[in-house]
Amino acid sequence: MKRYKIEIAYDGTDFSGWQMQPNAPSIQEMIEQALYFLTGSETHVSGSGRTDAGVHASCQVAHFDALDLDPDEALLALNETLPPTIRILSLEQVYDDFHARFGTKSKTYIYNLHTAPVCPPFQCAYTHHIRYPLDIDLLERAAMRFVGTHDFTTFANQANTGSASINPVRTIYSIDITKEEGALKIHFHGNGFLYKMVRNITGTLIQIATGKLPIESLDTLFEARDRREAPIAAPAKGLFLHKVEY
Amino acid sequence: MKRYKIEIAYDGTDFSGWQMQPNAPSIQEMIEQALYFLTGSETHVSGSGRTDAGVHASCQVAHFDALDLDPDEALLALNETLPPTIRILSLEQVYDDFHARFGTKSKTYIYNLHTAPVCPPFQCAYTHHIRYPLDIDLLERAAMRFVGTHDFTTFANQANTGSASINPVRTIYSIDITKEEGALKIHFHGNGFLYKMVRNITGTLIQIATGKLPIESLDTLFEARDRREAPIAAPAKGLFLHKVEY
Repeated sequence: MKRYKIEIAYDGTDFSGWQMQPNAPSIQEMIEQALYFLTGSETHVSGSGRTDAGVHASCQVAHFDALDLDPDEALLALNETLPPTIRILSLEQVYDDFHARFGTKSKTYIYNLHTAPVCPPFQCAYTHHIRYPLDIDLLERAAMRFVGTHDFTTFANQANTGSASINPVRTIYSIDITKEEGALKIHFHGNGFLYKMVRNITGTLIQIATGKLPIESLDTLFEARDRREAPIAAPAKGLFLHKVEY
Repeated sequence: MKRYKIEIAYDGTDFSGWQMQPNAPSIQEMIEQALYFLTGSETHVSGSGRTDAGVHASCQVAHFDALDLDPDEALLALNETLPPTIRILSLEQVYDDFHARFGTKSKTYIYNLHTAPVCPPFQCAYTHHIRYPLDIDLLERAAMRFVGTHDFTTFANQANTGSASINPVRTIYSIDITKEEGALKIHFHGNGFLYKMVRNITGTLIQIATGKLPIESLDTLFEARDRREAPIAAPAKGLFLHKVEY
């Protein structure tokens, strides 16, 4: 058996998320099905991490083991089988000890906000339309409070993984806000993110930037270590897994 | 009654096209419904022309008559009612003799082709993915043959309008091809386009640029004045109504 690394882009709109779920198609399941058609064997695909229902990826990473594959042919064949909303961007053989999940050094997520009065119909599935004026300076200042190593318990939902406890300390290296015409992109770069953490932080940033939550309350929120204290998560459709580094 | 002009963008994926159809929602129907909610009266909306099922518009134009409306409020209210895949971009009062269809001076359509090996999942509903190498020079030369005033019978489907005969002579002012990374846009600017004419011309250009049809056959095709002689139409999802001029 040889180990292969794949980079995958997907439109999460119609899927239950990355991970296999009963009663709803997941990205992982679609790729495992396509690999079954290609190789004739049941093949487990390990992703760099889960993305929720409705979250997109411009570049998710995963690995799987298979007998000798021609990378170019396999890429074409997989894309033939997969729906056009899931695309294998690259496929290459890697060392046997490459692990898409445990080898992760950092990840970048991008959250898209649309701030113009009318959101173009071609973007409505990929951005969160904010109808209230946003104070960008305040948004940037609030974002800075999240950068660094923190206990993010308040900003993480309980993942239904069955595992007893997850270390809630993570390091966010940077949060960069880029402006385009009528739109904002919030780039989160960190060593790892807890369940729904990016969407929860974004939801909080929006509340602050629209004047609904004072920026001073952030310290109290962090100290509370209680998800119920923080504002609701920003919707899944605005979020993209953008880059995974090894 | 006053006359209002609206500019509309829509993602045609889930609609039966611009015009009212039995048993499938049309863009026109959705807007008429939204106007009914707003004004309380049945209101007929006249578009600049029909777009087929699956064809998109970055800027369709239409008019309707209604009692006094506040343009800003009406725009907000209509967009609240409409699905996010249909957006009113502007709404203004115009002279009573403005007519969205009969006043048209020219129209621009854009056909999107994706030419890189992998088509991003976020574009698959808005472009036609060509998996064979395209000879762009040949495409540009073939496009030039369509520019000018011609009888386009070979490149027009019979519209099921009930009207006896439509003048098949149209003038295409220009066909411009712009290149982006992994993509081509074909801009058609003309005084009017027959039913499925842009998609039929694009289908023919693709056949020529992929070497399946000699460029020399264009003269014969024009002379045949028979739709059955020309290659199949390019798919609806790559086509955008881009601009209507009055």
